[in-house]
Amino acid sequence: MLNLWMPMTVTYIHLLLLLLDPSSALMSTQDPPPSLGNHSMDKNDVDEAEGHFTVPIAFRVFSVDYHHVQAPFEIVLWIMLASLAKLGFHWSGRIPAVVPESCLLIMVGLLVGGVIYGVRHTAPPVLSAEAFFLYLLPPIVLDAGYFLPGRLFFENLGTILWYAVLGTLWNVLGIGLSLYGLCQLGGWGLEEVSLLHFLLFGSLIAAVDPVAVLSVFEEIHVNEQLHILVFGESLLNDAVTVVLYKLFESFLRMPSVSGVDVLAGGCQFVVVGLGGLCVGLFFGLVAALTTRFTARAQVIAPLFVFLYSYLSYLTSEMLHFSGIMAIVTCAVTMKQYVEANVSEKSNTTIKYFLKMWSSVSETLIFIFLGVSTIQDVHMWSWPFVSSTLFLCLLWRALGVLLLTAVVNKLRRNAVTFRDQFIIAYGGLRGAICFSLVFLIEDFPKKRLFITTTIVVILFTVFVQGMTIKPLVELLDVKRKKRVLPTVSEEVHCRLLDHLLSGIEDVVGYWGQHYWKDKFEHFNTKYLKRFLIREDKQPKSSIVRLYQELERREQMGETDEGKRERSMNKYTHIQ
Amino acid sequence: MLNLWMPMTVTYIHLLLLLLDPSSALMSTQDPPPSLGNHSMDKNDVDEAEGHFTVPIAFRVFSVDYHHVQAPFEIVLWIMLASLAKLGFHWSGRIPAVVPESCLLIMVGLLVGGVIYGVRHTAPPVLSAEAFFLYLLPPIVLDAGYFLPGRLFFENLGTILWYAVLGTLWNVLGIGLSLYGLCQLGGWGLEEVSLLHFLLFGSLIAAVDPVAVLSVFEEIHVNEQLHILVFGESLLNDAVTVVLYKLFESFLRMPSVSGVDVLAGGCQFVVVGLGGLCVGLFFGLVAALTTRFTARAQVIAPLFVFLYSYLSYLTSEMLHFSGIMAIVTCAVTMKQYVEANVSEKSNTTIKYFLKMWSSVSETLIFIFLGVSTIQDVHMWSWPFVSSTLFLCLLWRALGVLLLTAVVNKLRRNAVTFRDQFIIAYGGLRGAICFSLVFLIEDFPKKRLFITTTIVVILFTVFVQGMTIKPLVELLDVKRKKRVLPTVSEEVHCRLLDHLLSGIEDVVGYWGQHYWKDKFEHFNTKYLKRFLIREDKQPKSSIVRLYQELERREQMGETDEGKRERSMNKYTHIQ
Repeated sequence: MLNLWMPMTVTYIHLLLLLLDPSSALMSTQDPPPSLGNHSMDKNDVDEAEGHFTVPIAFRVFSVDYHHVQAPFEIVLWIMLASLAKLGFHWSGRIPAVVPESCLLIMVGLLVGGVIYGVRHTAPPVLSAEAFFLYLLPPIVLDAGYFLPGRLFFENLGTILWYAVLGTLWNVLGIGLSLYGLCQLGGWGLEEVSLLHFLLFGSLIAAVDPVAVLSVFEEIHVNEQLHILVFGESLLNDAVTVVLYKLFESFLRMPSVSGVDVLAGGCQFVVVGLGGLCVGLFFGLVAALTTRFTARAQVIAPLFVFLYSYLSYLTSEMLHFSGIMAIVTCAVTMKQYVEANVSEKSNTTIKYFLKMWSSVSETLIFIFLGVSTIQDVHMWSWPFVSSTLFLCLLWRALGVLLLTAVVNKLRRNAVTFRDQFIIAYGGLRGAICFSLVFLIEDFPKKRLFITTTIVVILFTVFVQGMTIKPLVELLDVKRKKRVLPTVSEEVHCRLLDHLLSGIEDVVGYWGQHYWKDKFEHFNTKYLKRFLIREDKQPKSSIVRLYQELERREQMGETDEGKRERSMNKYTHIQ
Repeated sequence: MLNLWMPMTVTYIHLLLLLLDPSSALMSTQDPPPSLGNHSMDKNDVDEAEGHFTVPIAFRVFSVDYHHVQAPFEIVLWIMLASLAKLGFHWSGRIPAVVPESCLLIMVGLLVGGVIYGVRHTAPPVLSAEAFFLYLLPPIVLDAGYFLPGRLFFENLGTILWYAVLGTLWNVLGIGLSLYGLCQLGGWGLEEVSLLHFLLFGSLIAAVDPVAVLSVFEEIHVNEQLHILVFGESLLNDAVTVVLYKLFESFLRMPSVSGVDVLAGGCQFVVVGLGGLCVGLFFGLVAALTTRFTARAQVIAPLFVFLYSYLSYLTSEMLHFSGIMAIVTCAVTMKQYVEANVSEKSNTTIKYFLKMWSSVSETLIFIFLGVSTIQDVHMWSWPFVSSTLFLCLLWRALGVLLLTAVVNKLRRNAVTFRDQFIIAYGGLRGAICFSLVFLIEDFPKKRLFITTTIVVILFTVFVQGMTIKPLVELLDVKRKKRVLPTVSEEVHCRLLDHLLSGIEDVVGYWGQHYWKDKFEHFNTKYLKRFLIREDKQPKSSIVRLYQELERREQMGETDEGKRERSMNKYTHIQ
């Protein structure tokens, strides 16, 4: 056990060396990828710079040129720190059972931030929004999208959208307006802050974070439906949050806001959401088509999955659509065709690599959250911070109760009261709020907004994250089933699907089964023929089922594999 | 078949869009990773920049912000172009049988460069040395090191070092001095160029390139011994080339060169080589130790292989040691322990990912070589270019003949004349020369050096690369054996090893078998106990052999797998 700390010590020694080096550009390491370019402009310039300290003889036998390798070196060190921290927690065994990993990682970040502050007497820099949105977020969302349980997601899509769109609107307006009202009452010194600023703040503080939700919910194993409701909401509310944030931001810059502007803002919901969807769909289909032709170049097949997904995200961000929507759609679209087209080993590589990548990104985000908390720019106000925290909890709870009451009338299986409690309680905030609050244009009380956002994030991650597991046990929330359906169950399920779509057809009601059946028909008849290699195209649905089962068995996703997996989530693609 | 060109067209449309966009910063795309930072300095600044063209209404429903995503977007597009080009060649089937892939890729690069030149009327920028040495080279060398046939390499280490050290010195001095002599004869207008400049040029033009050698030799399947001699030389001559290059570069900057400086230069050979070796050894052992503790976090286990190897390369570059030596040593050191420590799926991911990564890097390097050839800075001189080309071939041929004559007296199995021809003919130049020539400090004839280097690279890759396969067939060079040794062969081989080491021990001659036996003993008794997980430590050598065979079978490396693989190298880890 002690041996583990050896490699860890190595990294910390490295880090300390960096800290003590007066020319260290740790500034840029907070923000890993963009720093790459800082010193690439002119190599010769850099060679002469201060970082090049050498033995002062005519011809140097030994010399150090740190600047030359600084950017990749520091990025590697941060990733190493993140990986070793993760390794350490999992090795120790007992701690992660009580405290969620996200909390531990934030604490490591606080520690590192504290050391940096102690040594350099200046605040460590913050996680840049650029690095977060362009490099750290996409792998996590791609992983989430690729492993999204499709059937469950689409069956609950209505409810998820209901929560994601109306729920987020409710929270943003509720928090923004009530905070404005409270501040107008006076006494907090915030009377001069405009309503638009509060609405802007509301739009970022209401954003439920998929990264935080995933990291906590993966450990508590609630039933699949509850999981998909919370997780789906956290994924899809991105579109709404981004629109509202940009809308209020633009309004703030404009001298006056007309009715047309508000109407345009309303239109943008549709544009941002549907735009992301279309971009994702397009790249997903192109990716599927490309993998059709990788038979003779299996080695690079997994690359296309990553490239096209990332491209869909970037294109979407470029056009100001929802990048999260795009990458999730892209992953969901391509998955079935890619899995059929590429070899078993390519599939393993794709899955393993996605897990590895998202796991590291997540770890880095939480560590950076911790590091960024140590700051000079904090501004504290007890009444404002505590009332924001209270209002966040209150409006979310009210929203969930209200929206569920309506949606339960339309659902076959109602969302129980216990589930509602977990949905409301599981609305964790994370790095998205954090990055957005730093992007606000400077105004006198920006520091207060930053401090409050950090407090809300830490409160939700620590207090809610740590207590949700005991609460789930206390409330006896329905847990995840540990066994896969048997073949007989699967056959019956499929029979029922066909039966229901037939009934819907007969009575002339175009419900979810009707559309699902239509899509399956179209998929089998056209899409699969076009997107899947000839030799991999299944002959009939029985053969397809058999191949699917065989594939699962190979991937260790059999009953036993499933059971083993639920013991410890980190061994599940062993 | 036509379908394949669809995704390709998409990329080209993207590229053309970039070209036609006046604000496109394609400048930075040549140099992928460093460009990451160009616009990360201040997001708000960039938002207002020209790239942000929007619909001119008060609140924008739709807007494009290309600068925001430019860096990752263009990197992804280049990688995509490289991958699609590779896919296209392998799909077409017939062309790669005649023309090596490296040539095809350079041609694609020439085409892209030509389009850029045609549209923008300025030369496309060149592959930056920074990007090449820090980002594109390491994955290729890591891949080469990780899959290095250990036994064969160490058995031939003496000969490889002989060629790599003395051969390179011979070539550098030969080419440098004879070019200087020829130019002094006059008539070429190069009389004023100093001897040191020619020696500097000699040191870079003599560098045999591991990337070019690998890409050509992987397709011609010569016998393993010949392969390891050429490939080993190309790997290890890096230390010599780098030392000589830096030595002459420093001498050029110094007002006068004293005897002490030359002595210091001599010392540096040892420092650079051994330094790289030590750094690699250190990180290799730490990596092995780290993977011992990944049992509960299998998902991130492959990451450590990449991180520690890259760190060894960067540390080595930082200290001006040979990065190639370091990363190869690191990979060779860690391999056996890592393979024992991590799960089968992690092993698959490591291998697959290394292949994928190195394959893309290699592709990008050749494409960039082609793009960078289209330039304004060319300076042409028939006599200089042709005599350089001739001298490169001549000195290499002479060197190989001479060195082999000596080394054959010490080897049990002599290097045949046919093998010598292939060794001399297989000395391909590549991106290393290219990057080094651009790093030379400016002087009047630098353009001539650049042009000559490009001609030598293109000649060796195109003419030698394309004719080596027919020549191997014509000369009837011994080919690779297509079957793995049987268990009986393996047992006898091991028996002979023990016997030989016993004989060496008895007669008091400390030869290679003696040291190998000593290392094996030390490895089993101490290193493996310390570096491999308890539950994975083999009980005896029979169990070990069985586990090894079982592992190979799982990895599809059985006789059948091997035979299938030799059909087409790209399906070999299918």
